[in-house]
Amino acid sequence: MSIVQIPMFFWLIPLCALAGIITALMLYKWSARHDEGTSRMKEIAASVRVGAMAYLGQQYRVMSLFFLVIAALFLFAALVSNISLWTPLIFLSGGLFSALAGYFGMKTATMASARTAAAAQKSLNSGLTLAFRSGGVMGLVVVGLGLMMISIWYVVLSGSMQIKDSADLGFLTATILSFGMGASLQALFARVGGGIFTKAADVGGDLVGKIEAGIPEDDPRNPAVIADNVGDNVGDVAGMGADLFESYVGSILAAGTLGVIAYAGLDMQWKATLVPLLIAGLGIVLSIIGIFLVRSRPDAGQKELMGALDRGIYFSTIGTSVGVFLLLYLIGLENWLQISLAVVVGMLVGIIIGKGTEHATSDEYKPTQSLAASAASDPATLVINGIGNGMISTVLPVITVAVGIILSFGIVADWQFNAEGVVSGLYGISIAAVGMLSTLGITLASDAYGPIADNAGGNAEMAGLDKEVRKRTDALDSLGNTTAAIGKGFAIGSAALTALALLASYLQSVRQVLLNDGTTSISLSGGETVDTAQATFDQLLTYFGASFMSPLTLVGFFIGTVVSFFFCGLTMKAVGRAAMLMVNEVRRQFREIPGIMEGTGTPDYANCVTIATKGAQKEMVFPAIIAMLTPIATGWLLGVGAVLGLLIGALCACFTLAIFMANTGGSWDNAKKYIETGEYGGKGSNAHKAAVIGDTIGDPFKDTSGPSLNILIKLMSMVAIATAAIPALYHLL
Amino acid sequence: MSIVQIPMFFWLIPLCALAGIITALMLYKWSARHDEGTSRMKEIAASVRVGAMAYLGQQYRVMSLFFLVIAALFLFAALVSNISLWTPLIFLSGGLFSALAGYFGMKTATMASARTAAAAQKSLNSGLTLAFRSGGVMGLVVVGLGLMMISIWYVVLSGSMQIKDSADLGFLTATILSFGMGASLQALFARVGGGIFTKAADVGGDLVGKIEAGIPEDDPRNPAVIADNVGDNVGDVAGMGADLFESYVGSILAAGTLGVIAYAGLDMQWKATLVPLLIAGLGIVLSIIGIFLVRSRPDAGQKELMGALDRGIYFSTIGTSVGVFLLLYLIGLENWLQISLAVVVGMLVGIIIGKGTEHATSDEYKPTQSLAASAASDPATLVINGIGNGMISTVLPVITVAVGIILSFGIVADWQFNAEGVVSGLYGISIAAVGMLSTLGITLASDAYGPIADNAGGNAEMAGLDKEVRKRTDALDSLGNTTAAIGKGFAIGSAALTALALLASYLQSVRQVLLNDGTTSISLSGGETVDTAQATFDQLLTYFGASFMSPLTLVGFFIGTVVSFFFCGLTMKAVGRAAMLMVNEVRRQFREIPGIMEGTGTPDYANCVTIATKGAQKEMVFPAIIAMLTPIATGWLLGVGAVLGLLIGALCACFTLAIFMANTGGSWDNAKKYIETGEYGGKGSNAHKAAVIGDTIGDPFKDTSGPSLNILIKLMSMVAIATAAIPALYHLL
Repeated sequence: MSIVQIPMFFWLIPLCALAGIITALMLYKWSARHDEGTSRMKEIAASVRVGAMAYLGQQYRVMSLFFLVIAALFLFAALVSNISLWTPLIFLSGGLFSALAGYFGMKTATMASARTAAAAQKSLNSGLTLAFRSGGVMGLVVVGLGLMMISIWYVVLSGSMQIKDSADLGFLTATILSFGMGASLQALFARVGGGIFTKAADVGGDLVGKIEAGIPEDDPRNPAVIADNVGDNVGDVAGMGADLFESYVGSILAAGTLGVIAYAGLDMQWKATLVPLLIAGLGIVLSIIGIFLVRSRPDAGQKELMGALDRGIYFSTIGTSVGVFLLLYLIGLENWLQISLAVVVGMLVGIIIGKGTEHATSDEYKPTQSLAASAASDPATLVINGIGNGMISTVLPVITVAVGIILSFGIVADWQFNAEGVVSGLYGISIAAVGMLSTLGITLASDAYGPIADNAGGNAEMAGLDKEVRKRTDALDSLGNTTAAIGKGFAIGSAALTALALLASYLQSVRQVLLNDGTTSISLSGGETVDTAQATFDQLLTYFGASFMSPLTLVGFFIGTVVSFFFCGLTMKAVGRAAMLMVNEVRRQFREIPGIMEGTGTPDYANCVTIATKGAQKEMVFPAIIAMLTPIATGWLLGVGAVLGLLIGALCACFTLAIFMANTGGSWDNAKKYIETGEYGGKGSNAHKAAVIGDTIGDPFKDTSGPSLNILIKLMSMVAIATAAIPALYHLL
Repeated sequence: MSIVQIPMFFWLIPLCALAGIITALMLYKWSARHDEGTSRMKEIAASVRVGAMAYLGQQYRVMSLFFLVIAALFLFAALVSNISLWTPLIFLSGGLFSALAGYFGMKTATMASARTAAAAQKSLNSGLTLAFRSGGVMGLVVVGLGLMMISIWYVVLSGSMQIKDSADLGFLTATILSFGMGASLQALFARVGGGIFTKAADVGGDLVGKIEAGIPEDDPRNPAVIADNVGDNVGDVAGMGADLFESYVGSILAAGTLGVIAYAGLDMQWKATLVPLLIAGLGIVLSIIGIFLVRSRPDAGQKELMGALDRGIYFSTIGTSVGVFLLLYLIGLENWLQISLAVVVGMLVGIIIGKGTEHATSDEYKPTQSLAASAASDPATLVINGIGNGMISTVLPVITVAVGIILSFGIVADWQFNAEGVVSGLYGISIAAVGMLSTLGITLASDAYGPIADNAGGNAEMAGLDKEVRKRTDALDSLGNTTAAIGKGFAIGSAALTALALLASYLQSVRQVLLNDGTTSISLSGGETVDTAQATFDQLLTYFGASFMSPLTLVGFFIGTVVSFFFCGLTMKAVGRAAMLMVNEVRRQFREIPGIMEGTGTPDYANCVTIATKGAQKEMVFPAIIAMLTPIATGWLLGVGAVLGLLIGALCACFTLAIFMANTGGSWDNAKKYIETGEYGGKGSNAHKAAVIGDTIGDPFKDTSGPSLNILIKLMSMVAIATAAIPALYHLL
């Protein structure tokens, strides 16, 4: 058995993952022990729960069709070529475990919302602790299940194949990469479907409820109100969870493939491929401790709560970065110091992007305040300035990531920005991505906490709890908005770095295709011939004619850019259409159900949930197909260079567009909230009306199209990797 | 004297240019002979004229500072290195002649508007002929002056230097390229400044006039009404003219530089470098004939007028493409057939993009009609769907250009998409760009015709002419919207192709820098050494470490993408700010001038013009500095690969963003007009109010930010070419 080849320290990794899973279970039980409040509160929570589960069931049904077809294709490919027979199973497990993480996260969130409202009756701190720890279930389930399943596949594959040399190890890491593809595909459905559901319900409900009928948010007379609360769960909890599950495993796996080629000697290669897992494991342990550090005095105010959250996150971050130096030194990784520094670079990039997002969207800073001022003028100026601000706000995160790329590459590659430094430098970049996501357990907790608090507020409003309670849940919610902004920054920044690492994985797959095809040497210009296995990336590129001056490659860039815009436009329109269905349904109910506005008739909440579900289900298929077919079609028509161009073009466009969409939407949302605090006339003023329009426009920006772009680029990279044989062997031009 | 080396056929080129200039002069005199109508009409026209000239004066003053500084830098560079001493002068002439073309075009347009209104009193056809021929002055002045000045520089430079070999000819074409840089810089100021002026006046005037005070468009009681009419001239006439002057000369010059390296033997190289000029000259002659073909029966209706326009444009297009085959065969260009086919490809690309723009923005097609339906729902859905539609609409033009790139490259390079085919293939792409723009004389005429008709309508309204006259000018205006949409498609598509050709020019400059620096051979990996002069583009790239896997190059892509968004955001915000100044001024006048709303008090029109001028002047400087410094800073910090990444990233992002902005804005505009025809309740309905908001948001989209992006990418390319020594010799990393 070759299983003994795995270095001993490996076994720490599944242990850490297990710790995450067990803690998640404990937190869940702890939350579930709390009182769920009055029977009205329970009833509302139950409706949301039922709706959310019904949606998930529907989404999983649509998805499973795609998964089965693709798994069958993988099986076929495995039978006719020499990719591993495990591939279809690994792929399916990626989708399944991402779905499981989403399921558990949502189960917890829908369980916790009424309990949070009930706890908020006691104190702000009780509400915070309950909501945050319930969010922690999501965070720890994502990282625990992700890391556990990757560890299991490492054990299974290294047991089933003889790892004799670095080629075998490379084959192993490339095979596990299909786990990331499964996670990507499931994430796309979760983000696009969930994003369409949540915004169809939100936009549709607001348009008729707030704008036409003039009733407040979360008013139980609005038939879309339960759907809206369901939407927060399926979009912001399950969608965000799947998104980050995918980023998390994607960054770990991409770094794993690069570890094999960045080092010499099987022993060191094993270490390098497992280092990303080890860093992730360490991050889980420190996230667990961090989550328990988030607590405050019973009578704490908003500021203290924020301090408590910050304490937990900073503890985990600093602890992980210190621990990495120690661990990598102890396991004897060759350049442990440089790799540890790359982890720190990744963390810093994440923090700066988070702060940048906060600056761009929080009403404590000038951009959002100036938007509120434009709203006082009219809706058109608000939209013009919002879009202008959003575009300008892309500069800081993109430049930060750029600096992070250069630093993490440069540190690890001894500042050799050329063919010699390229492999280790790319490994450095991928490690920075892993570092940024290593404390995902706690950062995701603070993300998932937001919708729980939001739903708690909805529950309190609908159940007619005290104004004081609603005020507390609002405070929790507002705190959640800030943490959500920071979380979005993490999601976007890590996606960019991971996609960059996947570019290198793509070239590795192309090389593997050549080797599998029996092309053991490639001839370059000038009659030079090199071993395919030893060729540098640049030589591979030359062999495939991938050059800046090749029209096929340049066209690849164009396609990558335009597919990002196309995808973004499709999801925007999908929200528009699904929201119209909701508008018509809400209008119909207002018209046809007697006594609904007086509160004597009961709205048909379930029908609104069904409509949003059907809308989302219908609308998520086409964008998913586009995302999968674009890299395949480009590769088949135009070859390897064009696919590379496509991936780079899409990376740049998706990254920048995603930040633009997220920040613009977030800023409009907060400008509205700022006005609602009484600025520029407060609620009901013209400024407020304009701000509500801005907020409604921003909804699909920040919660559907923007976040989906993160996944688009990674899914396209994964598809390109899985189908590398097409451009490498069978392209037309 | 080496002047005799210029092939004899060269002299046809300045003759064609002269024919364009003389015809322009004749058309101007013909227009000026027409009656300008009542004294009220004359008075209004005079105000617009004075305002427009005052603005141009101001803009030219700000610009000349920039021009003098840069010319001084060129002079310094010429004194310390071996770039030509003519460079500063050529650069200045590019700016000067672009400005002259803008000046003449605007002089004609402001002269013709009242006359068009007066002619429309007779018949629709009289109005059309007058407006169109006045637009023709602009079209022919742009192409005539551009081609003439390029010809003159060819004569001067080939006279002053000994053209002994292809290196000398390469030096000559590289030197003339600075004419394009001057044109680019002036175009940026004209587009950004003009765009800010026109939309500040338009948005500011509409917000207070239409939305707050409820008075119609072009109502003389609105103090911003003259500024709005001035804006049409400085933005749509002078701005568009400078934009296309720059595209026109840029495409000709870029193709000229590539002609030298795409062929062997000085004789054939001379031909190849002059072929773009020859195609342009042929296009001028056929544009002249086409312009005179645009006429109709005196009592013609809208449809017949469109037919007349189409007849002119199609005649010029088909005539030029047929003529090209003949001419290139006659002058004995080696692969005359392939090059002629590339011209046809370029023309087809232009036509398809134009049709795509029409489909995306005209109210005869589904996208805009569906927008009108969303407006009936509410402004938020209108904006969401508009942005969604706009993003989706980028697919057709981008894919068309992509196919055009592959075809024009493939045809000329014998379908060799590798290092062997690259130089001739790139020449093919650049020829396609020249082909697309060859009939600019008439396409620009139909563009410039739009604002003349628009101003005629304004004049008719303010002078209180018959409703019938206003209806006729409206018909002319609506025709102008369609041609303007097509024209925008041309501007964007040709910019993309030209920018692509400039990439190759950039690498040529880098090579020249190495040669000037005494680096006669470069060493590649594997110990290979090649002559710098003979090295392929790919070898040059390898030497500079420019690779898809180099972090510096990848960071270049990021910078290119984000600078496009940044620039776009800056110009959006600039319009927002300048419009606010206008809003405040119009509100002040409504408040302070007695009897203004009753029509007894006279608004202070001139002050509104001054405010828009100052706003534009202040706001155009920062974006211009960003556009110039980004390539220089990137080159200095990160080297050649990063600059190339920057240019490609910016090309993709600018191209796609520009189409998105132009189509989204155009569609909102036409959705509003569609509703104004009585659909969804017509004027004054809620749908109309929502549509006015959409139209106002779309103003800076389509008339400021979108068009400026075309120029951004070309200006950055030109700056990169001019400063190629910085990344090639002095970069930091």
